Amino acid sequence: MAFAKEQGWIAHGRSTVEEDYIAQFDLVVFALYPHVFLDWLRQYQGYFKPGALLTDVTGVKNGIVQEVQGMLRQDLEFIAAHPMAGRECSGVENAKKEIFYDANYIVVPTEKNTQQAIDTCRALGETLGFHTISTLTPERHDEMIGFLSQLTHCIAISLMTCRDTACLAEYSGDSFRDLTRIAKINETMWTELFLLNRDQLIEQMDLFERTFRHLRDCIADGRAEEIKEIMRQSTVQRGLFDKKESKVK
Amino acid sequence: MAFAKEQGWIAHGRSTVEEDYIAQFDLVVFALYPHVFLDWLRQYQGYFKPGALLTDVTGVKNGIVQEVQGMLRQDLEFIAAHPMAGRECSGVENAKKEIFYDANYIVVPTEKNTQQAIDTCRALGETLGFHTISTLTPERHDEMIGFLSQLTHCIAISLMTCRDTACLAEYSGDSFRDLTRIAKINETMWTELFLLNRDQLIEQMDLFERTFRHLRDCIADGRAEEIKEIMRQSTVQRGLFDKKESKVK
Repeated sequence: MAFAKEQGWIAHGRSTVEEDYIAQFDLVVFALYPHVFLDWLRQYQGYFKPGALLTDVTGVKNGIVQEVQGMLRQDLEFIAAHPMAGRECSGVENAKKEIFYDANYIVVPTEKNTQQAIDTCRALGETLGFHTISTLTPERHDEMIGFLSQLTHCIAISLMTCRDTACLAEYSGDSFRDLTRIAKINETMWTELFLLNRDQLIEQMDLFERTFRHLRDCIADGRAEEIKEIMRQSTVQRGLFDKKESKVK
Repeated sequence: MAFAKEQGWIAHGRSTVEEDYIAQFDLVVFALYPHVFLDWLRQYQGYFKPGALLTDVTGVKNGIVQEVQGMLRQDLEFIAAHPMAGRECSGVENAKKEIFYDANYIVVPTEKNTQQAIDTCRALGETLGFHTISTLTPERHDEMIGFLSQLTHCIAISLMTCRDTACLAEYSGDSFRDLTRIAKINETMWTELFLLNRDQLIEQMDLFERTFRHLRDCIADGRAEEIKEIMRQSTVQRGLFDKKESKVK
């Protein structure tokens, strides 16, 4: 807290839960492990002022949004959000607001949300400097996150642990470094997120594995034309993500 | 060629094979598709001056080094090398010498090579600005490349083609972009390289798939402690690659 104040990033803060302190806020952003977030609300939601708007940064929405909205006081509102920006290191000393600038901010409303809350949440994403603000249902969010984020972490972890790599650093090119950057991982948070989104994640993992296995068989059988066709597809599809990148740089 | 001359990157060049022209060089670096490289040498090796040193940048060594050294004139020498630096785009307009600066250059000698050729090849890597110059046997090179480079490309391609992603660009975080950067791929070159190194690549793919499948089963069964242990391992092992990175920046 002292460090964040010194940097001018916060005006004031507390590491204890005090009713007077909490009662002053109109907008509260929760950045807690999912189960801690739920426990916290159960215990302390009585402290908020009537009309306060709560939002979060939780990486999975099913099992969180419905739980929170189901238990919340009638005079409070919770609107879920997911800022798609992060680093492979944690702690306020590693905070960097620039990670927001070419990133996506996803608002995840349900039928329980007011238009005003949705607008405020979008405005928060804009204020933070996010490049694209979009809206998804919890189901669609979790499916998408299962593929784009959780599957990629599973791949990185598996690649990093499938053999002894200690002696390989001096031979490595950028491709291995790129694919394993996210293999440095907060095991408590990610295990919880994986298990909260288990069904979606397993589906995405199986999808990937079938495709990977097909490529393996093409290589084993020497089916050159089929391999080339997969690579051409891959090049075209990656091109769609490129345009995005060049647009924001 | 006009562009490279304009940039001051080459003093002169030819796009045709002329005996007089080729006969003047002491050191020649081949950057051709593997089978084209072999064909070229069969046809034109008579043009080199006695004592010329040949080297290459081919991404696979077994099936190339022995072939070349076996067919070469007795008064020429071929020393294999692999500059571990590349981009996902091709053409001289995309050339960037900076990609060498924190990269690895691997010299791949056999018992047919002289110490002088090995030294010259290492000196070439140094002149180009490579950060680390190392030496590997062809067998060890191909095993290592099967894992660090070819497997990672197989993963990226499979991730990019396992489902329709066109609608996902606006939700993507950096992890997906990092893992698929190399999914833009020259299908002619990489298919040839994959098939030249087929046995090694299949072994590395199977190694990865077993680990990935184990993680999948841990998630499906909700074995949280086991997942956390894998993530802790992954974080430690990735740390070894980090130190390297910070050293070179």
